[in-house]
Amino acid sequence: MLLEQIEKANDIKQIDKADYGLLAEEIRQFLIEKISVTGGHLGSNLGAVELTMALHLSLNFPEDKLIWDVGHQSYTHKLLTGRRDGFENLRKFHGMSGFPKRKESDCDCFDTGHSSTSISAGLGLVKARDIKGEKNTVISVIGDGSLTGGMAYEALNNASQLETNFIIILNDNKMSISENVGGISRYLNKMRTADSYLDLKEGVYNALRSVKGDSAITKIRRLKSSVKQLVIPGMFFEDMGITYLGPVNGHDINGLIRVIKEAKRVKGAVLVHVITEKGKGYGPAERHPARFHGAEPFEIETGLPKVPRNTPNYTDIFSTVMCKLGQREENVVAITAAMPDGTGLKRFRNMYPDRFFDVGIAEEHAVTFAAGLAAGGLKPVVAVYSSFLQRAYDQILHDVCIQNLPVVFAIDRAGLVGSDGETHQGIFDLSYLSCIPNMHVMAPKNKWELSDMLKFAVAFDGPVAIRYPRGEAYAGLKEFRAPIELGKGEWIYREKEILLLAVGSMVKTAEKVRERLREEGHACSLVNARFVKPVDTALLKEAAKEHGLFVTLEENVASGGFGESVRRSMDEMGLENGILSVTIPDAYVEHGNVELLKKELEMDEESIFRRIRKKLEES
Amino acid sequence: MLLEQIEKANDIKQIDKADYGLLAEEIRQFLIEKISVTGGHLGSNLGAVELTMALHLSLNFPEDKLIWDVGHQSYTHKLLTGRRDGFENLRKFHGMSGFPKRKESDCDCFDTGHSSTSISAGLGLVKARDIKGEKNTVISVIGDGSLTGGMAYEALNNASQLETNFIIILNDNKMSISENVGGISRYLNKMRTADSYLDLKEGVYNALRSVKGDSAITKIRRLKSSVKQLVIPGMFFEDMGITYLGPVNGHDINGLIRVIKEAKRVKGAVLVHVITEKGKGYGPAERHPARFHGAEPFEIETGLPKVPRNTPNYTDIFSTVMCKLGQREENVVAITAAMPDGTGLKRFRNMYPDRFFDVGIAEEHAVTFAAGLAAGGLKPVVAVYSSFLQRAYDQILHDVCIQNLPVVFAIDRAGLVGSDGETHQGIFDLSYLSCIPNMHVMAPKNKWELSDMLKFAVAFDGPVAIRYPRGEAYAGLKEFRAPIELGKGEWIYREKEILLLAVGSMVKTAEKVRERLREEGHACSLVNARFVKPVDTALLKEAAKEHGLFVTLEENVASGGFGESVRRSMDEMGLENGILSVTIPDAYVEHGNVELLKKELEMDEESIFRRIRKKLEES
Repeated sequence: MLLEQIEKANDIKQIDKADYGLLAEEIRQFLIEKISVTGGHLGSNLGAVELTMALHLSLNFPEDKLIWDVGHQSYTHKLLTGRRDGFENLRKFHGMSGFPKRKESDCDCFDTGHSSTSISAGLGLVKARDIKGEKNTVISVIGDGSLTGGMAYEALNNASQLETNFIIILNDNKMSISENVGGISRYLNKMRTADSYLDLKEGVYNALRSVKGDSAITKIRRLKSSVKQLVIPGMFFEDMGITYLGPVNGHDINGLIRVIKEAKRVKGAVLVHVITEKGKGYGPAERHPARFHGAEPFEIETGLPKVPRNTPNYTDIFSTVMCKLGQREENVVAITAAMPDGTGLKRFRNMYPDRFFDVGIAEEHAVTFAAGLAAGGLKPVVAVYSSFLQRAYDQILHDVCIQNLPVVFAIDRAGLVGSDGETHQGIFDLSYLSCIPNMHVMAPKNKWELSDMLKFAVAFDGPVAIRYPRGEAYAGLKEFRAPIELGKGEWIYREKEILLLAVGSMVKTAEKVRERLREEGHACSLVNARFVKPVDTALLKEAAKEHGLFVTLEENVASGGFGESVRRSMDEMGLENGILSVTIPDAYVEHGNVELLKKELEMDEESIFRRIRKKLEES
Repeated sequence: MLLEQIEKANDIKQIDKADYGLLAEEIRQFLIEKISVTGGHLGSNLGAVELTMALHLSLNFPEDKLIWDVGHQSYTHKLLTGRRDGFENLRKFHGMSGFPKRKESDCDCFDTGHSSTSISAGLGLVKARDIKGEKNTVISVIGDGSLTGGMAYEALNNASQLETNFIIILNDNKMSISENVGGISRYLNKMRTADSYLDLKEGVYNALRSVKGDSAITKIRRLKSSVKQLVIPGMFFEDMGITYLGPVNGHDINGLIRVIKEAKRVKGAVLVHVITEKGKGYGPAERHPARFHGAEPFEIETGLPKVPRNTPNYTDIFSTVMCKLGQREENVVAITAAMPDGTGLKRFRNMYPDRFFDVGIAEEHAVTFAAGLAAGGLKPVVAVYSSFLQRAYDQILHDVCIQNLPVVFAIDRAGLVGSDGETHQGIFDLSYLSCIPNMHVMAPKNKWELSDMLKFAVAFDGPVAIRYPRGEAYAGLKEFRAPIELGKGEWIYREKEILLLAVGSMVKTAEKVRERLREEGHACSLVNARFVKPVDTALLKEAAKEHGLFVTLEENVASGGFGESVRRSMDEMGLENGILSVTIPDAYVEHGNVELLKKELEMDEESIFRRIRKKLEES
């Protein structure tokens, strides 16, 4: 095995040139085997094998700096920098992360996770290098999907002024997680098939000849459209002031090495356009790129999941309800930022293509676009993951909520998400949304309530956010289905002494905690909060009469969360009952199985039970 | 006066064509006179007089939709839609806003304030129009400065797929508030002086002829650079799929009307490139565009402020300290998002041009770029207004704080800002920053403390935010200057009974409140919190022994703010002292004098005094 000869960074340089193809093959086999067991990002990694090898053959680590946009395609980089054993525990608690981590290796120079950050970070490393008088090479690798994000463009606009070397590799596989969209994507597609120089020259001559008569402005317009058809490769980037090289075949290692060498000579920012195929070398991943973007453990032979999923998750419920709402309400439109699959909007898209919008990886635009749709009289539903909605904080605050526009935010992956780790945990949304005036924030206890809340939100005349977790939709408590009322919580069990006041996913946990408390002889009520904002002050006031201790439960950090809101509301009403708040601690939460993480964070049934007992003993 | 004939929308169409020039002149005189009294945005409005007239002559209001990016250039639009009298109370409390407001007129179809939102909002209105089968025209007017913001590009990328009409007017005056920067800006500048069609044709022929020998890729590179020099106007936009028309003279009304007519015929998104001059027609504003961007009341003859400013504001202090730090620490670098003047970094730029970065209106990039600089071993200070930093929430959380990078955020205009109103109040930063792990949040009580905090922050190895208000730097309490210690508050007056725990600007108010309380015979301590995060729990614990009532004071909303943190900390320590939190209520705060606003919000000395007395009576 060639792979076994690579024990640390730069070892790849000892491999014989003639064996590069063999090594690439070994890496692919390794990745397929390991990820089939642990799960993880497969397609993007299979597509970047040769590119990563060429980069490692061209650079010196850790002196040179390589930034992976998003970072899920960094597996081969990990493999080539002494982390082969890490794949045994990939994305497991205390195991190797699925993303670049500075704390994991000095060959990881910048942590990534969200899209479109790599050019900004790379430019920062370039400027730091220049100011400190160092001489290393800085390379940012960004996908064509990530290039639809506005901050990539902000960074290109800034990088165009550079007078020292900075290499940006555009890893173009025509995909975000789903198929890439928008003007830039079409433009890149045209370049993939750009004519040769000779065709180009001929074409421009003919274009110029054919433009006769008419006014100067018309002539220019015709000339432009002729030139446009010819696609002079990379003029879009060159117009910004960025040198463009390419397109080059991303699976030709020697070609890649040559173009990287050429790129290093450019005094300024240079974009190398590399064409790759997502899933390359593994049939099922080539055929189903979205499914193999982030895969559960699968059978190598068939590509089918090892454990087939039988129970619907919240995304499925959202998907179904949206289709129904689309049929019932012709004003309902749906927006995703490059996630038709992940958010479950694909079915809505298929049924109502004219009322569905995939705006690319562009959460900021998505939200203000939704505000425009709402100002125009429609009912937009923006479906987005909790951690990605962080990107659009100002747009929610400034474009939706100041105008009190009826935009519905369907926030998936809220709470702990598990194996993607720190960058993807959805544990801040209750805080960053609750401080915004006019906003309403809800969380369903089970699958039926998600449906009811969506219908409520679409009928409501103002901004509403509904947050729900990754994974299986809770099917318990079916019998509790009182109509949703603005700002009203729901009594599940009404006793006295202890009041459990749970948000969304924590209702299920609270049920079990309640059983434990009752086994110990305590009386215990359970309220499903439903609304995190506004807080149900009437319920608090009423409950205060019969409950000595209030326990709030939420999958969110403490600062700005539900617990703090409840505590403030009680204080404002002069209620002096004891409060215990179960929240995520003030720290980032690493990757790992959600159940394990909850134990670690003392948010599982057992820990909460113990914390309540301790609180009771103290008082 | 022609202007007097215009009482409502569409009245301008009754004006004789021959009188357009005269009307433009009257509008300019009106704006100069009114703004010289009230203060307000002058330069951008003087530059957009003819453009606005041409738009009003070409559109029907309120059926057609006009979205003003940022919105400070909408004064002529207000004048032409029946709001002439509003200029008497422009930007005053309960007076007319300086920005478009749907609640002010049905001719304002979308509220703006922050940069780069207009294309997203406009695209939303276009899609709503098409889905509802309506037929109006939608036009977004965006400046070249706003075009450096990433969300404008996200929107263009999305708009390029349109098959119905959507007009984007690029109002190009080469300026943000300060001079515009970056690749796009240079590209637009080249277009301003683009050759005629004939020169273009000749040039391309010669370019093609001169490219001989060498490989195909070299030929293409040479061809590209030749074509680049020629600047085929608008190819950058056309490459995205947006029709480009222009450039056209933005002070030629008839020319503008013609090009708008042509633009209306395009089935798709069309960008009209209009060249204007900021401050047009008023000498001082033409010569000092940054000063007349947002002007205080001034003498028309000289352009000088009516009330010269003698006392330094916090921005001045920041400016001075940064220059000193730049000299002392060679690793200190400074970043602004298009605000070298507003943030006070101009002097740093002049002294250390290689360590200063103006990235354009691009807060997202600014923050991740800073993260890159910090990862590269430098000490970046990002100077930004509180309400604009909202744009970079995810970048702070995801790119700076996960990696615990030593980036300093110098947050100006924190708290109530006054006349810019809802979109610009900096009343959320304590909330959106405190919920982020690893972040440290500080606020100085006076000008010396801003200096001390900056030095502390630059020496600290982790993310620190320092927030300070608009306006005069407080020069009181000079004698209290104990060294800054991580997470430690500062005792100013130590008595008992009541503890005032004030954040930043509220220390000054708290001093006065304390005097009032003492006059009534109460004992009262005053603590300058210094740190909003982490909360000084040791101080709370100690203070709890001698104070029955804690009063927190902050210029921030309640949810997620300092008061909630204090309440939670006390609860976690089992402290049962009473708490009263003085905060901004859960609502957007309109424009107006800050002192008036504080009264309205019950955050002035008198109201706070009364609230404390009431709280004491209740308990």
